[in-house]
Amino acid sequence: MPVRFELQTTDATGARAGLLHTRRGPVATPVFMPVATHATIRGMDPSEVWATGARVLLANTYHLMLRPGAEVFRRFGGIHRFMQWDGGILTDSGGYQIFSLPEDREITEKGAHFRSFYDNSRQLLSPETSIAMQQAIGSDIMMVLDVCIDSTTDEAGTRGAMERTHRWALRSLAAKQAEDTGQALFAIVQGGVFEHLRDESVAYLTQHPFEGFAIGGLAVGESKEHLHAMTERAAARLPREKPRYLMGVGTPTDLLECVRRGVDMFDCIIPTKMAQQGYAYTFQGLVRVTRQVFRLSEEPLDATCDCAVCQRFSRGYLQHLMRGGHHQGARLLAVHNVRHYQMLTARMREAILAGTFDALYRQLKDAYANTSLR
Amino acid sequence: MPVRFELQTTDATGARAGLLHTRRGPVATPVFMPVATHATIRGMDPSEVWATGARVLLANTYHLMLRPGAEVFRRFGGIHRFMQWDGGILTDSGGYQIFSLPEDREITEKGAHFRSFYDNSRQLLSPETSIAMQQAIGSDIMMVLDVCIDSTTDEAGTRGAMERTHRWALRSLAAKQAEDTGQALFAIVQGGVFEHLRDESVAYLTQHPFEGFAIGGLAVGESKEHLHAMTERAAARLPREKPRYLMGVGTPTDLLECVRRGVDMFDCIIPTKMAQQGYAYTFQGLVRVTRQVFRLSEEPLDATCDCAVCQRFSRGYLQHLMRGGHHQGARLLAVHNVRHYQMLTARMREAILAGTFDALYRQLKDAYANTSLR
Repeated sequence: MPVRFELQTTDATGARAGLLHTRRGPVATPVFMPVATHATIRGMDPSEVWATGARVLLANTYHLMLRPGAEVFRRFGGIHRFMQWDGGILTDSGGYQIFSLPEDREITEKGAHFRSFYDNSRQLLSPETSIAMQQAIGSDIMMVLDVCIDSTTDEAGTRGAMERTHRWALRSLAAKQAEDTGQALFAIVQGGVFEHLRDESVAYLTQHPFEGFAIGGLAVGESKEHLHAMTERAAARLPREKPRYLMGVGTPTDLLECVRRGVDMFDCIIPTKMAQQGYAYTFQGLVRVTRQVFRLSEEPLDATCDCAVCQRFSRGYLQHLMRGGHHQGARLLAVHNVRHYQMLTARMREAILAGTFDALYRQLKDAYANTSLR
Repeated sequence: MPVRFELQTTDATGARAGLLHTRRGPVATPVFMPVATHATIRGMDPSEVWATGARVLLANTYHLMLRPGAEVFRRFGGIHRFMQWDGGILTDSGGYQIFSLPEDREITEKGAHFRSFYDNSRQLLSPETSIAMQQAIGSDIMMVLDVCIDSTTDEAGTRGAMERTHRWALRSLAAKQAEDTGQALFAIVQGGVFEHLRDESVAYLTQHPFEGFAIGGLAVGESKEHLHAMTERAAARLPREKPRYLMGVGTPTDLLECVRRGVDMFDCIIPTKMAQQGYAYTFQGLVRVTRQVFRLSEEPLDATCDCAVCQRFSRGYLQHLMRGGHHQGARLLAVHNVRHYQMLTARMREAILAGTFDALYRQLKDAYANTSLR
């Protein structure tokens, strides 16, 4: 088994703690995977990312197939050596990027035909080419190519996308099985905001030997209610013994909510994106560093944080960097935010194992809702 | 004495090796000071800068008086704590920045009147306010406010600027002596491209108790011949027992040339600026990382370099980052280039002490002239 999930406990709320055993070592869940789309986390050194406690990163097949391309990964023997990251890597398949492509893409049963943003070359991203690219990248966990749709798509359109996603999932599985590279493959549950379609998608995909299941097609514009309802519904029907990954989610509050609904794995650009905008997550609430009131502040972002930034730098200095537009500002905030997410998942895990998750959930939900620091 | 210069040896070419004893510890010379204009080195963490071997940074009074302002430095007890840098800091006085200001500045005998770029507030940078700001910043070495001019200025204009620079130097010295903060003060030799004015400037300034002397008004558009001739002339007349600092210079080749002419200290934005443009200095020549030929290269930038980048990353990966416009690319090249400058000054120092500087000079001059890697 390329990955094996060891469920350690499920608490009364449905929150789970486990260990995802990968070929790069065990990963404690719930886990948050920082996003390294282009084989780099915005301005962060791999050693800094490792120091935050992150042990799995997400990289993107669509972006990496266009640049630097499969040939480079084959030469380097994979992404780990290329970017000097010893932890795990999960590659998204490119399904979401196809969905966001400009007009001149053409999506057929075969796959997505489009032109490269860089050199206008013709490209095909199909279940088979996505797996081949993910094999070249050498990620530890591959994702099936799925059909993403807008959350406002009607039932017939949603069903069509879901059914194609299922066919593509089986083609991805066949492509993976044709060559044993030791990589895991996760399927992606679709079905939009329709409960019975989500149920159908789970029922279909779980008949096949995927190593894990993602909940896809969320965090694409639907309401928080739909996000929570669909997550809860899918998680409740997914097999206990396989990891559950909610793609593209989310804020710390979203993590609290969705861990509570039985999700084990997350990825999101929010911690680094918010850093660029001058925001730091803390266990006392969201801090907008550029607030005038912090100009003379000698305090760290979060006195309870053990990150490399809070150990050294003040809000006053970070404000100086952000106001001056110095990259170092967003960089330092990103280091802090990525560490914050790791501390959050570690705290949730500890609480789940100790049977105190519900109390932590209530405490942190209130803290994150604190707007006095913004 | 806030700083004391210990001249260890002067070789046959005129190159000097010494120790600049500062309140932050001894600094081996020749020394290159990376530029932290705004109390940050472009995207580099202070710990990364320290790891390059750099022990003194240059910060800028003009920029720091406008943002974050003296009040912030007073609150933090100085720039070292503010930016978390334990090494030395030399502050430039703002003379060069006044000279580059847009039209609505007014320079009188009192100082430079201008409006803040940020909030349009009226500002005065005079010898006295520059010293007061440098005292608030708490640098280890302060510079006098000088009058910079274009290198094409005629003799009368150059003389006028030089004489005002001298009067301002004495006012700076008086302002410094009015309050003993333990900071050193360096004077700045002016005189444009006129040998007799340079001589006069050296003769005048060296009568006063400055802890060191800078050669100013160069690297502002004059030819390399003038740069070398004026440097050589000033250095030959400056007292042996005081450190000599050539402001704003230069490329590795400039450092070779000017160390040979008796200069001890340098600062320049070139290593970080070139990094942004995708260039890496190596002991085999200048490498343009984005060259197609490096796409699949698993080689480090410089196999003889011990920097944190060359120990881990390939030209292929750095090209990927640079072509994608990822800040991490310029950041990593900057780490390499800053370390390269430190290795260069260390190699020069070692050779000067060993009596082999001339051979090193010839070898490296040829290496840097190698254009096959560009």
